[in-house]
Amino acid sequence: MPPTSTVGESRSAQKHRQILEAATTAFLDRGYRGTSMDVVAAGAGVSKQTVYKHFSDKATLFGEIVRSTVAVVADPVHDEVAGLADSGDLEADLTDLARRQLAGVLQPTLLRLRRLVIAEADRFPELGRLFYEEGPGRTIATLATSFARLADRGLLAVDHPERAAAELNWLLMAGPVNRVMMLGDDGRPADAELDDHARAAVRTFLAAYRHPHD
Amino acid sequence: MPPTSTVGESRSAQKHRQILEAATTAFLDRGYRGTSMDVVAAGAGVSKQTVYKHFSDKATLFGEIVRSTVAVVADPVHDEVAGLADSGDLEADLTDLARRQLAGVLQPTLLRLRRLVIAEADRFPELGRLFYEEGPGRTIATLATSFARLADRGLLAVDHPERAAAELNWLLMAGPVNRVMMLGDDGRPADAELDDHARAAVRTFLAAYRHPHD
Repeated sequence: MPPTSTVGESRSAQKHRQILEAATTAFLDRGYRGTSMDVVAAGAGVSKQTVYKHFSDKATLFGEIVRSTVAVVADPVHDEVAGLADSGDLEADLTDLARRQLAGVLQPTLLRLRRLVIAEADRFPELGRLFYEEGPGRTIATLATSFARLADRGLLAVDHPERAAAELNWLLMAGPVNRVMMLGDDGRPADAELDDHARAAVRTFLAAYRHPHD
Repeated sequence: MPPTSTVGESRSAQKHRQILEAATTAFLDRGYRGTSMDVVAAGAGVSKQTVYKHFSDKATLFGEIVRSTVAVVADPVHDEVAGLADSGDLEADLTDLARRQLAGVLQPTLLRLRRLVIAEADRFPELGRLFYEEGPGRTIATLATSFARLADRGLLAVDHPERAAAELNWLLMAGPVNRVMMLGDDGRPADAELDDHARAAVRTFLAAYRHPHD
């Protein structure tokens, strides 16, 4: 894939982006250990010195890729999760959010990155930590803040917002993500199945946590 | 590790076991692609011809390892899950079972095998399928059968036993397993934390599914 170009982008910003694109391709195709800074430089069409000017080492470069890939999926969802606290129809809003979150997490690049991080977690636990913190860790923390506010509003009966947030997250994600992790692309549920799954996960969550006087 | 020996074992059974032990070590240390039948033969101290006499190819050998490793953890639990249907104290029995199931799934060899299967799922989806079916697939199916009987006894309000079983399975497993998958051994929760987690997962499940007249 030839590097894309954006009008008005500075030369340095353009190189930065070219390096990130080449590195993403290399990591996903060759794995972490199989990717060297030489490979990245060749892929980006820049010198190795230029790669090092932008990223001090391979771990930093990989970290930036995890952060930016997860952010593309997670950032819009996080704004929405934060807005949940003011929901007027919690079941509808949670279901809507759940469905979009599921679609984001099941995006092919993110799945491949997750697989890579898991494969290397014994040798490079810092890669997995980054993925965990930027991904499920951040989602659960934001969700917990909203649940605490929904409990204040009397809509949820939640003593441990962080635990409840983790439970909703995994009720929603664990089944589909584990299927895809283990079965590969064949394991990906159809869209209609994902719709049902999101509805059911939210229903179970609310059956456990909806305020009894609601 | 020198091959162990069992009194009264036939020579053929002994070789079979030696090959499985050597192959397990090789797969976990070198990955699936990095392991050849030559490596396995050398590790087991037998000829390559002998390896082929016992296992027709590498995929069959790997399949047997997945099956036997998962079975060591899963078999005792499955008997217990089946017994749930007659439980006199569902919360206590489910919590007890959940805690043991968690300990089993978090055993180091099984975690390493899970990591290996995930790393290779794009190239060898049949390895992941085997792991999925023998592992979570089988647990969820057995649990669903018990839930259907508990619903018949009026103890659970469950319309979709399979879905409810998957929900309990992931409420219990997803958090700890994902932490360990991504963070490596550092991610393993302490035993007291796992106790709390199992209790909380069962409480949430029963809050959603306990029969309302119970």
